[in-house]
Amino acid sequence: MTLPATPLFTDLYELTMMQGYWREGIHRRRACFEMFFRRLPFGGGYAVAAGIADVAIFLNGLHFTATDLDHLRSLGMFSADFLAYLRDWRFTGNVDAVPEGSCVFPYEPVVRVCAPLDQGQVIESALLNAVNFQTLIATKAMRICRAAGRDNVLEFGMRRAQGADGALSAARAAYIGGCAATSNVEAGRQYGIPARGTQAHSWIMAFPDELTAFRAYCEAYPENGTLLVDTYDTLRSGVPHAIQVAHELEQKGHRLFGIRLDSGDLAALAKEARRRLDEANLPGVKIVASGDLDEYRVAALLREGAPSDQWGIGTRLVTAQDDPSLTGVYKLAALEGENERWECKMKRSDSTAKTTVPGMKDLWRLSDPQGRFVADVLELETAKPDWMHSTPLFSLETGEQVLMTNPAWIAETILRPLIREGIPAGESPSLAAIKENARREIDRLPAACCELIDPAAYPVLAGPELGREIRRGR
Amino acid sequence: MTLPATPLFTDLYELTMMQGYWREGIHRRRACFEMFFRRLPFGGGYAVAAGIADVAIFLNGLHFTATDLDHLRSLGMFSADFLAYLRDWRFTGNVDAVPEGSCVFPYEPVVRVCAPLDQGQVIESALLNAVNFQTLIATKAMRICRAAGRDNVLEFGMRRAQGADGALSAARAAYIGGCAATSNVEAGRQYGIPARGTQAHSWIMAFPDELTAFRAYCEAYPENGTLLVDTYDTLRSGVPHAIQVAHELEQKGHRLFGIRLDSGDLAALAKEARRRLDEANLPGVKIVASGDLDEYRVAALLREGAPSDQWGIGTRLVTAQDDPSLTGVYKLAALEGENERWECKMKRSDSTAKTTVPGMKDLWRLSDPQGRFVADVLELETAKPDWMHSTPLFSLETGEQVLMTNPAWIAETILRPLIREGIPAGESPSLAAIKENARREIDRLPAACCELIDPAAYPVLAGPELGREIRRGR
Repeated sequence: MTLPATPLFTDLYELTMMQGYWREGIHRRRACFEMFFRRLPFGGGYAVAAGIADVAIFLNGLHFTATDLDHLRSLGMFSADFLAYLRDWRFTGNVDAVPEGSCVFPYEPVVRVCAPLDQGQVIESALLNAVNFQTLIATKAMRICRAAGRDNVLEFGMRRAQGADGALSAARAAYIGGCAATSNVEAGRQYGIPARGTQAHSWIMAFPDELTAFRAYCEAYPENGTLLVDTYDTLRSGVPHAIQVAHELEQKGHRLFGIRLDSGDLAALAKEARRRLDEANLPGVKIVASGDLDEYRVAALLREGAPSDQWGIGTRLVTAQDDPSLTGVYKLAALEGENERWECKMKRSDSTAKTTVPGMKDLWRLSDPQGRFVADVLELETAKPDWMHSTPLFSLETGEQVLMTNPAWIAETILRPLIREGIPAGESPSLAAIKENARREIDRLPAACCELIDPAAYPVLAGPELGREIRRGR
Repeated sequence: MTLPATPLFTDLYELTMMQGYWREGIHRRRACFEMFFRRLPFGGGYAVAAGIADVAIFLNGLHFTATDLDHLRSLGMFSADFLAYLRDWRFTGNVDAVPEGSCVFPYEPVVRVCAPLDQGQVIESALLNAVNFQTLIATKAMRICRAAGRDNVLEFGMRRAQGADGALSAARAAYIGGCAATSNVEAGRQYGIPARGTQAHSWIMAFPDELTAFRAYCEAYPENGTLLVDTYDTLRSGVPHAIQVAHELEQKGHRLFGIRLDSGDLAALAKEARRRLDEANLPGVKIVASGDLDEYRVAALLREGAPSDQWGIGTRLVTAQDDPSLTGVYKLAALEGENERWECKMKRSDSTAKTTVPGMKDLWRLSDPQGRFVADVLELETAKPDWMHSTPLFSLETGEQVLMTNPAWIAETILRPLIREGIPAGESPSLAAIKENARREIDRLPAACCELIDPAAYPVLAGPELGREIRRGR
């Protein structure tokens, strides 16, 4: 599921402001908007950018259909002339964005839109909707997958996700963040994600007894069955029955894939189940653990020595339960003046935390010769590209100097063309490539920034010209 | 946006279990599944049922298309014979549900599905997805709207919602829970919800100064403009400029609708803004407050005397931020045996909290002669309908007697036919009617059950026959 392909998938005020700009004759001035967030989710040290491909799909060919215009007319707020203007309206702007899977940090332009003012304005809500949510879930998934170890987290969250798309696009983002598979068959189809599953209690209850239920399941799935062992009593009934059925399977030349623990003291149950499986000469039978898990519980279970091979993670992943929204914003950073020069725009709020960083900016990432990320730098897009050699860097908050660059460091711009004059700028990378990018990026971050709890803050600084602009604005 | 109209919008294990039932030849046995939750969200005293209309739309005409079957074939888990069976598969079951907007409580069947086992199984995930989320948001909205007072909460959450449908169906559910309008134009169109909005900081920043921005906006919207006053300095700049523009509007025979406060100490700012507006002889100009609000903050602001006329509520409403998932489940309650008699099914988990209440049940609501709700009663569907006169009622947990019914009380069943033999059972009520139902229902609940914090528990009990069944199962 992608975003609804209509500019009416927006907040009403975007459309009323659009009409206002048009009325004032300033709707065609080029504006630069930046999408960024001010706070990392989960008290973590990084975020994993996602949802950007959906923005490209949404913008490609975006226009008002006759039905859209009829609906706007019915609201009684839009003039006939303005609606006539919308008839031929198209999104013709340029959009740059970090590649999906990139690590991103507070105040960095994750997406940068340069477009006629009315166009840049009306796409705000849809862009934020897609990028805020998928970035949130990709980040959560990365945290969980790093706690659990590689390629053994299954996303099982559909039933408690926030609506249909809360399930579908969460499956996509969770895969980017490192999950091995989703339970959601439709998400698997739409995004090419492996689908996986075990069995439900209803299967067990549909048979006269647990052993019969297990046997029937393994007859149907003699090579890849996972048996849910907690319907009646995990250790007294579920595990012994699973062992019995695993032996029966072996005699027929098949094998049981695993058992699933879904309730109770998972560490103790997993240890005892593992002991019994090994004792029964079934070391190959995997243990899948599930039930209200997240990165903290997985880490705790592993500390307790729970020998779980896979983790089925649902609600707390797909809703990002402990911090269910990325509060990304989309702010006007610069606007073409009447003389066609860009003017930096800066919001000064009653809350200092809501003040914005002015100007159309590039995002640079500095790495050391070993490829380890050192710091990110925001610099005005108009600055000379050779700014980074032995240059002082400045605080985004105060504009004061905080760091000197090192000539051995490598500086790369991170923003890449996503849309050029309304048209997607090249092929979107495959989901597998995005996932791989996310893994590579996180491996290059300082380890201290990746801690689950109280991570070190990754430095995000201002280059010389932006530093000057910030000091000027204070 | 409704649920994707495909049975592949489900968890993989539903489909593998489906094939398993079919292989065992038990897929046509009639099964009764019940959707219920065990815990009220937000530590509250009630939940407001929603999302049920989406289930009816999803089930109506549900079938596997050729493309669906191709995808299943590609997974390599399904036999050709089973896929051939799916070709003509249709949902033919009966579904009963509480009317949307009803108050519901733990362990009550919100939706009850009686269908051939494979049909009842495969629809689980989509049903839970829709009902869990919309019930959660309708409940949150009701809490906020009761704190704020009637018809003055605007849902502004699209940009931080969990995906496209997290925005769209949240707007629907928020309206059911009492919100007056949504900012989301597409949600307004799809569901017939009034759309409302104010203006963004970008509008202000697109003009040389705030006063020019306000004037331009009010020229475009001379009768219904709301000015955002916190871009630079609320009291020193925003409010004085808004007052000036309001006076200019009055001289032209128009009026300013309101101002919006979006940051800072909202109580202090609202009081001072109100004082200045009144002093300037503008008592009709409304104050709209927004910015990370929820029911607790609205209640606190009102206690502090904040004279806000409307509340714009976004993130914390549409993500249900403090409790972002309703953990509703869907459990097999009864299954037709080989002799065509229903057998009660009960899951006994290692966690007592995960044990289910057995049997196919009706849901009754008792009210006193004044129309006030007294208690809800679950009773086996096979029980005589005259059970409720001077009858003992039992605890769902222990099966012990806890209450005697009163002959003056009126008992009504709450579940209503939603689908009969796969076809919607009548017209779905309008969204306005559902919203009105929600308001009426909450007014009939004991006031102590509606408290924001530490509400009284509304009694949910077992009738005589179910009580016997529960005692038997222990």
